[in-house]
Amino acid sequence: MWRLHQYPLCPFSRKVRFACAVKGVEVELVREYPWERRDAFAALNPAGQTPVIQNGTVTLVDSAAICDYFEETVARTPLLGAGPEERAEARRLIAWFDQKFYGEVTSLLLTERMYKRIVLRQPPDAATVRGAARNAEAHLDYLDFLLDRRRWVAGPAFGLADIAAAAQISVADYLGGIEWDGHEPARIWYSALKSRPAFRPMLGERMEGLPPPAHYDKLDF
Amino acid sequence: MWRLHQYPLCPFSRKVRFACAVKGVEVELVREYPWERRDAFAALNPAGQTPVIQNGTVTLVDSAAICDYFEETVARTPLLGAGPEERAEARRLIAWFDQKFYGEVTSLLLTERMYKRIVLRQPPDAATVRGAARNAEAHLDYLDFLLDRRRWVAGPAFGLADIAAAAQISVADYLGGIEWDGHEPARIWYSALKSRPAFRPMLGERMEGLPPPAHYDKLDF
Repeated sequence: MWRLHQYPLCPFSRKVRFACAVKGVEVELVREYPWERRDAFAALNPAGQTPVIQNGTVTLVDSAAICDYFEETVARTPLLGAGPEERAEARRLIAWFDQKFYGEVTSLLLTERMYKRIVLRQPPDAATVRGAARNAEAHLDYLDFLLDRRRWVAGPAFGLADIAAAAQISVADYLGGIEWDGHEPARIWYSALKSRPAFRPMLGERMEGLPPPAHYDKLDF
Repeated sequence: MWRLHQYPLCPFSRKVRFACAVKGVEVELVREYPWERRDAFAALNPAGQTPVIQNGTVTLVDSAAICDYFEETVARTPLLGAGPEERAEARRLIAWFDQKFYGEVTSLLLTERMYKRIVLRQPPDAATVRGAARNAEAHLDYLDFLLDRRRWVAGPAFGLADIAAAAQISVADYLGGIEWDGHEPARIWYSALKSRPAFRPMLGERMEGLPPPAHYDKLDF
């Protein structure tokens, strides 16, 4: 059994959990708050970040490395497209959500609305939160643009780009950073993901002392 | 012939150039300064970042997606290790240099010493530059640690992790952010890379109005 070191609002852990569930890889969850900088965790991952996944002597670090590992070792449900160009398009969009959406939206909300509240006991900076919401709006516009032209984020098939996008968006949504009005293509896509048995468990999880908005885990939102 | 949209100090373009040269993929360079936000470039890559590589109707975006594409389509010189665990270790370290080193060192130096000078006509912020230099020192310590235990960054064979590391370090070195004293394992490794025909052309390239330190392109440094 694989053991995944994660915490409820880590978007990269959500990406790994979602991918593992789709692939049928059973995962036991181990709670780890990276900001506590535990020595035992730093020994597993010198970068000090979740997710880390372990099985016996195998320790895998970094969500992209972990997802590629399971894509290579588990034949069930290929998640990266049929040919090299389809895979490059999927990887472009995985990088888009892992890096651009994370940097412009999720990481700002995690700092302002989770880390400051739970760890620093400080109020969020309103201007930063507003900036993150504006950035989220632009990202949802781009998602609408993609989904007007294709069935899923990277092409005709569901895959890792959808998983990467849903991981970031679900954390931003939990933290009140997503305004769904006016984004029908993105809303329909996200509604389909919310109803997937592989994704639902994450929507039921809560970060202590930090409740999500009422619409967060509803299929009709 | 592939056309690579890049500029001399883009670390992710250096990664693609180095990988292509090792793979024997011929590349024509097209100068692109992403901060000019040209519409024609935004149409190629809505993220607005270099590198972008094109060949006929195929357009590839994001250095990881581009390197994976050539790894999949060009059999010569495999760059990602023999088995899934070796590949996961390579990908962990590629992510380390692409994201952690870039965020903590290269991006700070590019902003302070290149963008402010060339675009904003402002002096660099000394505290930020000192912080980047301290971070670089910690990263070189980690590189020494790895190279004390293995021949190359990710294991016994040269590969994409070495290329990703050299791409970031060479840009930081150009911008005066690397102090080599006291880092013999890293220096020996970098010296071996500097003498490779696939890497040398980048060391001869200059950003206009921004000369590198005297040691930058010397094999003996």
